[in-house]
Amino acid sequence: MDTWTLEKTGFDPADIASDGNRFLCANGFMGLRGVPEEAGSELFPAITLAGVYDQYRDRWREPVNAPNCLFVRTAFNGREYALGPKPHEAHLCELDYRSGIYRRETDFGPITVRSERFAYMPLCHLLADRYQVTAHEDGELTIRAGISTDIWDINGPHLFDFQFGQGDVLTVQAITGQKGIKVAVSQYIQKDFEAEESRIQDGTGVFRLLCCPVRKGQTLTLDIFAAVHTSEDTTDPLERCTHVRDLTGYNQLKARHISAWDEIRERSEISLEGSDEAALALHASQYHLNCVAPRHAISMSIPARGLSGQTYKGAIFWDSEIFFFPMFVYTQPEIARSLLRYRIETLPGALKKAAEYGYRGAFYAWESQEGGAEGCTNFNVVDVFTHRPVRTYFRDKQIHISADIAYALRQYYAITGDRTLLEEGGAKVILECARFCLSRANVRLDQREIDFADVIGPDEYHERVTNNAFTNHMIRSCLESALSLEQIFADDPGFLAALLREMDYEKDWTLLSDAASCIRGPRRKNGVIEQFDGYFDLEDCSLETVRGRLCDPREYWGGDHGVAGTTQIIKQADVIAMMALFPEDFTDQEVAANWAYYEPRTEHGSSLSACMYALTACRIGRLDEAWRLFMKTAEIDVTGGGKQWAGEIYIGGTHPASNGGAWMIAALGFAGLQVRNGIPELHPNLPRQISCLTFPITAGGRRMTVEVTHDGGTIRTL
Amino acid sequence: MDTWTLEKTGFDPADIASDGNRFLCANGFMGLRGVPEEAGSELFPAITLAGVYDQYRDRWREPVNAPNCLFVRTAFNGREYALGPKPHEAHLCELDYRSGIYRRETDFGPITVRSERFAYMPLCHLLADRYQVTAHEDGELTIRAGISTDIWDINGPHLFDFQFGQGDVLTVQAITGQKGIKVAVSQYIQKDFEAEESRIQDGTGVFRLLCCPVRKGQTLTLDIFAAVHTSEDTTDPLERCTHVRDLTGYNQLKARHISAWDEIRERSEISLEGSDEAALALHASQYHLNCVAPRHAISMSIPARGLSGQTYKGAIFWDSEIFFFPMFVYTQPEIARSLLRYRIETLPGALKKAAEYGYRGAFYAWESQEGGAEGCTNFNVVDVFTHRPVRTYFRDKQIHISADIAYALRQYYAITGDRTLLEEGGAKVILECARFCLSRANVRLDQREIDFADVIGPDEYHERVTNNAFTNHMIRSCLESALSLEQIFADDPGFLAALLREMDYEKDWTLLSDAASCIRGPRRKNGVIEQFDGYFDLEDCSLETVRGRLCDPREYWGGDHGVAGTTQIIKQADVIAMMALFPEDFTDQEVAANWAYYEPRTEHGSSLSACMYALTACRIGRLDEAWRLFMKTAEIDVTGGGKQWAGEIYIGGTHPASNGGAWMIAALGFAGLQVRNGIPELHPNLPRQISCLTFPITAGGRRMTVEVTHDGGTIRTL
Repeated sequence: MDTWTLEKTGFDPADIASDGNRFLCANGFMGLRGVPEEAGSELFPAITLAGVYDQYRDRWREPVNAPNCLFVRTAFNGREYALGPKPHEAHLCELDYRSGIYRRETDFGPITVRSERFAYMPLCHLLADRYQVTAHEDGELTIRAGISTDIWDINGPHLFDFQFGQGDVLTVQAITGQKGIKVAVSQYIQKDFEAEESRIQDGTGVFRLLCCPVRKGQTLTLDIFAAVHTSEDTTDPLERCTHVRDLTGYNQLKARHISAWDEIRERSEISLEGSDEAALALHASQYHLNCVAPRHAISMSIPARGLSGQTYKGAIFWDSEIFFFPMFVYTQPEIARSLLRYRIETLPGALKKAAEYGYRGAFYAWESQEGGAEGCTNFNVVDVFTHRPVRTYFRDKQIHISADIAYALRQYYAITGDRTLLEEGGAKVILECARFCLSRANVRLDQREIDFADVIGPDEYHERVTNNAFTNHMIRSCLESALSLEQIFADDPGFLAALLREMDYEKDWTLLSDAASCIRGPRRKNGVIEQFDGYFDLEDCSLETVRGRLCDPREYWGGDHGVAGTTQIIKQADVIAMMALFPEDFTDQEVAANWAYYEPRTEHGSSLSACMYALTACRIGRLDEAWRLFMKTAEIDVTGGGKQWAGEIYIGGTHPASNGGAWMIAALGFAGLQVRNGIPELHPNLPRQISCLTFPITAGGRRMTVEVTHDGGTIRTL
Repeated sequence: MDTWTLEKTGFDPADIASDGNRFLCANGFMGLRGVPEEAGSELFPAITLAGVYDQYRDRWREPVNAPNCLFVRTAFNGREYALGPKPHEAHLCELDYRSGIYRRETDFGPITVRSERFAYMPLCHLLADRYQVTAHEDGELTIRAGISTDIWDINGPHLFDFQFGQGDVLTVQAITGQKGIKVAVSQYIQKDFEAEESRIQDGTGVFRLLCCPVRKGQTLTLDIFAAVHTSEDTTDPLERCTHVRDLTGYNQLKARHISAWDEIRERSEISLEGSDEAALALHASQYHLNCVAPRHAISMSIPARGLSGQTYKGAIFWDSEIFFFPMFVYTQPEIARSLLRYRIETLPGALKKAAEYGYRGAFYAWESQEGGAEGCTNFNVVDVFTHRPVRTYFRDKQIHISADIAYALRQYYAITGDRTLLEEGGAKVILECARFCLSRANVRLDQREIDFADVIGPDEYHERVTNNAFTNHMIRSCLESALSLEQIFADDPGFLAALLREMDYEKDWTLLSDAASCIRGPRRKNGVIEQFDGYFDLEDCSLETVRGRLCDPREYWGGDHGVAGTTQIIKQADVIAMMALFPEDFTDQEVAANWAYYEPRTEHGSSLSACMYALTACRIGRLDEAWRLFMKTAEIDVTGGGKQWAGEIYIGGTHPASNGGAWMIAALGFAGLQVRNGIPELHPNLPRQISCLTFPITAGGRRMTVEVTHDGGTIRTL
């Protein structure tokens, strides 16, 4: 079995939303959905741009999709051939997880179309596509190649004032409606055949028409090079796009692209022996997370659905710090640094959000867009019975986001030993997050205990709860991280002193240690931690009972109106997420008792759930369950599982959090990697299905190789 | 026009639920619904007992209805005649608001049935009914009179282990399911005719059969006397019930009953000239509130639907202190005292509820039953789309209830000048309510300001809000009331000192004045007070817009899922209720600005709303609107308006809060009665529709008469 290639034969329009994600090509700057070159908007084509957002009227703000600059469609003897709802002869496509090269071959009858394409990794503005047509009879071929503006937009349109260029290089430049950002794309071709060439420009874009006679058996090859720039990365994006004509040939580009991916894999690839299915799933996971990593930017993060489209508003969630960050900090710390620098740069947005809610410090956006702008609205769900928007509290109440960011900053220092990020704004972010926690704390007039009331924890089905165990623990850790700066900068006390002065923080500083020790600890019953105050008083019924109460399969489960909200059924790991993230704060017995209680009560309705249960299952020896949850996590973008639609809202896409989760389960769970006092250790819990795991890590600035078998584990410094 | 009598001709089964309320006879101990004597359970007959509650299985706890001991049904020539879904000849009934005497006359064709009945006011365990049958042709009459167990129960059955007595006095005794309370009833008759007499006992009760021949034109008269006792009022209720045989005749009883009502009216009756409709409505309001007043008990309150049935679980709401209390404290302070003693006696229940929620002090039940037990459940609404119960927060979050009780205690002292109630537990209640407020307060670590977060104000459509202006103001008043005890007991400082010691209150006492001054005041925009933090940010749309969004007319408007919850449309007076209750804390300009803003945004979905708007409208000279709202308030139990059903839940009944509200509008609004420093004053705002208002009051222990005309007002001490 080829553990490096995702293959699919046949073409079913019903799968195209999902397949567009599974066969994604991306390079951190843009994501090219895995749809055929000839696709119109009905097949959801998109070149989704990282970090460029727009709002159309009062719809949701979302990332902008560039015009489709790899468009090609072929006609033979006057008839156009395109995959779509119509019948076709035979179709095969594949994605090579080693290098993100996508290939297709479609037999349309009189002609066969083959292509091979990639989002060029060494220079993130480029796309390349080798497009070949073979004729099976004599006739006249017409190839229409160019830039299509008939693209997928969920809450668009976003582009206006189109300018078309019909020169040697085809170009389109448009501006976004809200901020007037220029988006320019170009297409240039090299071909191995003579043809009569003309131009078309119509409402669907600008195209080059290539007409030529062909003989039976003849193959024509078109090498297509496309560039995408925006005024966010250069002052004259249109001009930059025209340089696409200066590229060397396709084969050279492809070789350099493959070599860039070889380097990425050398630094991060987990090699798994014993199960081909698992190896394939792990390759897929690592490909999908690596391909959306912002290698081109020193300060950028990764949306919850990667670059697979506009889902979830292209926003940055806590997924970045809790699910993506671990793989990067252990393998490519410069990317982990970029994720965190995004938070440092967006601190002003977080300060503003806190102030809007009447608090001090930094309250980060739940769905962060550029500049830290909050993309999350007050209404994120549509009621299926009344079609009315439902007020949800994700934006207002998921305060753990700020503490999650402080957690990742502290982890970055602990694992890399590099304190420059703290010096360059990280310390300030931790202090502002802690200040927000202080400001959000509720004390009673007559008590010293601190509550965090009216919050939402990771389990979003229970809104507006008090003393969510995860949140309180994360906040305590945030306050402790702030206090730990004194130790970290013990040799440079002037740094912290100056910072506190600059931030007018002296009074807050005196509150920190007292506050950390007063935060209400969780209540326990028979060793089980209560997820929040009153959770144990909720109806205790099975997942099946709750599911059986649905009146409509598309109903939202959460909130007071949902079937889960008034029961102990939870959406995703919550107490268990806390135990996974703070392994040293809980004993094996505690983890075992809580796992046994919460797992059967968890819907795993979020792709963030299985990973946390798998990590903790490793620790307590539930290896078969860990394996099952690992496979569920790692295979999600192989099988295209996961929800695609929530009512009428598209929520599909790739799952970088699961991708990162798969790495975490393999490295932190199965291999049991931990860094204590700067030194990596292994505590292997290898399931019987795996014979050997090998992978590179970087810790304390040194590159090492980890190898784990059933005989134990070794860490070798390179 | 007879302004003292409610009349109705004809009988429509569709009206019977409402008519049962409108034609209610009651005497504070029990309420006898205005249905025909022969009614079976399909016509909702009930003798609802004050303060006796029962729970059947997991259904709502509610008051117990006694067996129907005034049951009579007549057959002529073998055919029974009863009002019901079948056609009948002619029917007329009326209720005399002077004395609560109900009369009916039904022409069934061959016979006419007339009756006159009342709930005996001088001795609250008795009912009397003069029942007359006139034959229109010769024939055989069979009168079945007795005790029917075929009664209305909303969440029953509540009575078990029936024992029937077939002696001279018919008796039924049963016990309640939950607590084993004995409920006994009896029926005794005096008659003016000879008849063959026998007994029947079957599944529907125990009856006396009276058979006799009659001639055309002959009238038979049956005087029926019934008694109701429970083991809550006497050790042997059955034995007590048998004393019904010792009563003198019907006419003597009736005369004493009328005379008792004459006394009640002498102390409370508002005489209104200028509008017969208004006079009738005011007579109805005063009758309905006076007839449910607990004259027989020194410690008892009044349910939100009086004694008209089991609606709203027969529970005591804030209606008692805010809407019923004013009429009583100004006219019959011993009843006001009984209402408040109920709160003093149920303090243990309030302390327990606070502790259950993790607070100190007294958190009174939102729906208080005997002993202060909380009758409010977590689910009070049924979703019309899914038929699933909806989590509501009335029980947990309407914390103003405790402060409302402290407010009434302070008013009692201010108006009566009598501090014995404070000495006999009232001061302790105020202090425990204040302690609850201290304990429920949220302060920030870094600020002195106190928030009250996650509450519900009077406007129940907006759940879980922060800094509800009404709530914060009421709580500040509660803390000030506690502090004012020092002044009230200035001549007896030992009393307060001992109380504080006994209550372990010294530390709380030191917090009080600081806390009162730190409570977050309301935010204002253009002079309009924001109902709660963020209210002005909600969608500002018209009542019609919101109504137009309903997908089902029976939908609940409130909560995040309801059409009103995310808009500025409110259920009932909230900011305006605060201004009505604290007139001295706001200027006329403030009241005018807030009235103009909030009135158009108010659904008046509660019968508690119009009265508050009317009171404030008087003050700012909006007299036509005050008049309209007065009529709406006062007429509610004349017309039978108001909601009868909420989905499948019966919510009809009489409206003592509106009844009390009508008194308040007339006396406090139109006449402008105020007591300052113990001295009553008048600030008349008489609408043009009224020429003269005259009414008795009691203030500072002295009885006075108020008279207001368009020339001004006078207060005359009697």
